[in-house]
Amino acid sequence: MNRVPLERKVLSENDRIAAELRTRFSENGILCLNLVSSPGAGKTSLLERTLEAFPREQRVAVLTGDIQTDNDAVRLARFGFPVRQITTGGTCHLDARMVDKALGEWRLEDLDLLLIENVGNLVCPSSYDLGEAAKIVVLSVAEGEEKPLKYPAMFLRSELLILNKIDLVPYVPFSLAKARENAQLVHPGIETIEVSCLTGEGLPQWQSWLESRMESSRKSFAAI
Amino acid sequence: MNRVPLERKVLSENDRIAAELRTRFSENGILCLNLVSSPGAGKTSLLERTLEAFPREQRVAVLTGDIQTDNDAVRLARFGFPVRQITTGGTCHLDARMVDKALGEWRLEDLDLLLIENVGNLVCPSSYDLGEAAKIVVLSVAEGEEKPLKYPAMFLRSELLILNKIDLVPYVPFSLAKARENAQLVHPGIETIEVSCLTGEGLPQWQSWLESRMESSRKSFAAI
Repeated sequence: MNRVPLERKVLSENDRIAAELRTRFSENGILCLNLVSSPGAGKTSLLERTLEAFPREQRVAVLTGDIQTDNDAVRLARFGFPVRQITTGGTCHLDARMVDKALGEWRLEDLDLLLIENVGNLVCPSSYDLGEAAKIVVLSVAEGEEKPLKYPAMFLRSELLILNKIDLVPYVPFSLAKARENAQLVHPGIETIEVSCLTGEGLPQWQSWLESRMESSRKSFAAI
Repeated sequence: MNRVPLERKVLSENDRIAAELRTRFSENGILCLNLVSSPGAGKTSLLERTLEAFPREQRVAVLTGDIQTDNDAVRLARFGFPVRQITTGGTCHLDARMVDKALGEWRLEDLDLLLIENVGNLVCPSSYDLGEAAKIVVLSVAEGEEKPLKYPAMFLRSELLILNKIDLVPYVPFSLAKARENAQLVHPGIETIEVSCLTGEGLPQWQSWLESRMESSRKSFAAI
């Protein structure tokens, strides 16, 4: 019972820092995307395929959150773009302060795109605004088609649903149609892209989505 | 910063109720097991296969936790044993008070086994004692072999690791040996059972583990 007012305070402090971050991103023409999912849904693999496809001159950076280990940062750094690991040391989500701190001395004016990979957790990260333009929820088909109904907040607050590991569809009890339908029940109008990071299927659609979001971001920036 | 003392208070209150539950379970000769995992690792499927294999007279009951929906309780009730859904309404874990409340008017003296299916979350449920004799962590091979390193608290606090969905091993980049090795690094001596709820592989080992734990629990009870 006592917990609610304090949680509210923590969240409102987070919202304040997130709002500052959002202003900084906007002033520097940066599109910031916050990737959320269960553990093992494939956020890092999706980022690997995304970075791999970018031209060398792409002005992109990545922050990747984990409770322990810097495995993901090591995986992602191979592509030559700036990557920083945020190790939360037990905390179940990233918050705006961690992002602010991790940005450190990066020159924001040199970036067009900031990809944040959140801690693998389909619950808590939904409550923490990181100043992003959009949350993107990644759901692996191995997790089951009812997940949007069971974890509604995350699907409600995400602009895009990436149904990942569709190469596994023949081997798991999962209906893509049903998953889309469940996502629409929780969040009418949510966009969905079906992807396999193993076979590459669907990656062009994801890249188009990203390109079109970056284009909108560039236009808003030019209009400032 | 302010959050720590309050979290400690919440946890110590939880520990107090969990200790009471543990005493009640022990006084009634009940083995209580707390199943934890990421969303979609297959806890409900494992429980379905477990209940299905029990004789009608098995004195078992199930509490199943979810943020939203009573889908799991509906799935599990089909086997004729008492099942209750705990819908947390946003909270990312079960706590001892929720379990205490859900037990309600169940006659504990009529039970030998209480299976608790926690909310799908590989982080927060590790901090909440529910009065269980043991936590069991379920990891789907689709999630990746490095999960014990990334989410160490859960693997450290679990007595048994169930590597689930091993039927998917041919289709995913996952080494069972590496996963076992990672689990041992975090929790030396943790037991591991490899299971497929789809093909039934490994289920006899799980049933033996359960039977042997129930036998120990019966012996301690007889000795009181």
